[in-house]
Amino acid sequence: MNNFITTTALQTELQHKIDNKTKPIGALGVLEDVALSIGLIQGTLRPALRMPHIIVFAADHGIAATGLVNPYPQAVTAQMVLNFIGGGAAINVFCRQHDIGLTIVDAGVNADFGDMKHFPRFIDAKMGYGTQNYLDGEAMSSEQMWHAIEEGKKIVQGLYDSGCNCIGLGEMGIGNTSSAALVMSFLTGIPIEDCVGRGTGVNEDQLKKKMETLVRAFGRHRDRVCSHASAAGGGLAAGGRPTADPYTILQCVGGFEIAMMTGAYLRAAELRMVVLVDGFITTAALLLARAIESSVQDCCLFTHASGEQGHEKMLRFLGVRPLLNLGMRLGEGTGAAMAFPIVQSAVHFLNEMASFESAGVSNKE
Amino acid sequence: MNNFITTTALQTELQHKIDNKTKPIGALGVLEDVALSIGLIQGTLRPALRMPHIIVFAADHGIAATGLVNPYPQAVTAQMVLNFIGGGAAINVFCRQHDIGLTIVDAGVNADFGDMKHFPRFIDAKMGYGTQNYLDGEAMSSEQMWHAIEEGKKIVQGLYDSGCNCIGLGEMGIGNTSSAALVMSFLTGIPIEDCVGRGTGVNEDQLKKKMETLVRAFGRHRDRVCSHASAAGGGLAAGGRPTADPYTILQCVGGFEIAMMTGAYLRAAELRMVVLVDGFITTAALLLARAIESSVQDCCLFTHASGEQGHEKMLRFLGVRPLLNLGMRLGEGTGAAMAFPIVQSAVHFLNEMASFESAGVSNKE
Repeated sequence: MNNFITTTALQTELQHKIDNKTKPIGALGVLEDVALSIGLIQGTLRPALRMPHIIVFAADHGIAATGLVNPYPQAVTAQMVLNFIGGGAAINVFCRQHDIGLTIVDAGVNADFGDMKHFPRFIDAKMGYGTQNYLDGEAMSSEQMWHAIEEGKKIVQGLYDSGCNCIGLGEMGIGNTSSAALVMSFLTGIPIEDCVGRGTGVNEDQLKKKMETLVRAFGRHRDRVCSHASAAGGGLAAGGRPTADPYTILQCVGGFEIAMMTGAYLRAAELRMVVLVDGFITTAALLLARAIESSVQDCCLFTHASGEQGHEKMLRFLGVRPLLNLGMRLGEGTGAAMAFPIVQSAVHFLNEMASFESAGVSNKE
Repeated sequence: MNNFITTTALQTELQHKIDNKTKPIGALGVLEDVALSIGLIQGTLRPALRMPHIIVFAADHGIAATGLVNPYPQAVTAQMVLNFIGGGAAINVFCRQHDIGLTIVDAGVNADFGDMKHFPRFIDAKMGYGTQNYLDGEAMSSEQMWHAIEEGKKIVQGLYDSGCNCIGLGEMGIGNTSSAALVMSFLTGIPIEDCVGRGTGVNEDQLKKKMETLVRAFGRHRDRVCSHASAAGGGLAAGGRPTADPYTILQCVGGFEIAMMTGAYLRAAELRMVVLVDGFITTAALLLARAIESSVQDCCLFTHASGEQGHEKMLRFLGVRPLLNLGMRLGEGTGAAMAFPIVQSAVHFLNEMASFESAGVSNKE
């Protein structure tokens, strides 16, 4: 797959296979693009999705304890982890429906869960009891950040080793739309005011307070992030600014779940897994991963446009169109789970549909 | 469900149930609307989709034999029916994937299929060897039209009696985007030129010829259709014109598959089945059914926006937003099949997700 000529030849063969199915050229629309992408990711004319899996990374954010950015109390992160374990959350429902495996990771929740050995799909990778408040300093130490990225890689490697070749990432963390908005603004050059949205549903007053808080946080870290810009390797964000350094951004305003997802994307792409990208926070982590290694995006399918207002801007920045646009804004990987059957349909039609020749159907006159 | 107070009370209870799931209010977006709709269609707080089924109605069109409107030869309709029977078409692939039953109906294909007794999901309801060319006269006789509507009703009734409560309609018929465009123009008041599209993929020259042909066909039947306008029961199309009579339209420019689908919609709505509406031709049949009985639309979920250009205008006319927008334009009910898991997800979250109370999760502060 690293050989340009081989990739081009495969692309031609895949397109020929798609065009010879018993349907007018292009009649399956976006499904045809998805089939082509998956064929190229896997380097084959007969792709297959094996043991699809969603990993939900949960962590708390120091900023959330202040109540400046979030209408729900911080305790909800831990409560929702227990809800995931109990099978009652939306992501549980959709994973059951589509036979998608589900792993819950404590990346840094501000609570102890005790002995979870009877829940084999729970991974304790706690980096701390939530990040520090980034209004006061850096969200996490450099050691925590590197450790979190490494843990994310190991978790994906473990799934891959067990036979999985398709993953979706999800997250849970009260306050994490704020962290994602800051990451987005630093990496895309889009003003922070245009990156902030309602998250889980703040009202007008709360949105104003959230906005003011994040403008302050942006200003607090701007110099530090931008002084490291030259270390990033020379990419250019929108408007021609030097790309800010993803590691510095992560450390200053990131979250443990965001750092872990960054590592997860990096390893998944190295392993040529099909990666289902969910909503606002998970796409922020992808922005970080591709700032580190731009080819990561080649393995990604963009599953939905979140109702969180900044997400469409992120997708535009990435130059991609999502599969679904259902106004969902729940996180947890729910968009990825909902889009999975569509991705599966693309693989199925490529493998199972008859060709004009095999079915004895006349092509155009 | 016919009692206004009961429906309102049920709607309130359904909304309360949706809002108490462990997610921010509205965070599942369109899924929440779908859950509400299905609860109202079935008149229950615990809806269920049983034995979902897609019926593909196939028929030929006299106009197609002229080659004026279609790039594929008419013989493709029969060839594709055999492809459906053989399991090699896109709709077979997607129905297998989602465990959706599939019935193929010969509504009037210009070929004999011989003994099909070993294919129990094939129904011979042939109304003729294709319709007449509507450039020369009426597409079908009044008897054929009534018979086709009746057959469509019986086919749906049979599925309902066997336990199915959710159907999607699909179609196959070389030339049937032309018939659908004429039906659309007569019923919506949108000029025929704005209803005609590329169908299975005509080129510029072919599109010009198709357009000219359909302008002629529209003119040929306008007086007949409009003289019956007052018989339609007084509805008003866009622009305040009296609605043209759906039965006259069907007879003059319809197709056997379109007439049968019209009957199918009418009976499905009477039975309060959940009806998955597919693309351009199936929505044209729905326009006819709702011109006959406006409440039919209450049972419909609109599954996708077809790549055929007139479809979005139809959806706008109906005031609805489709679930998917994947640029598909294949027919066969493929959009309905692709959207089925999303509809199922709506039912699952309503029935299976924990409430804030049951999961011990804090609601907003």
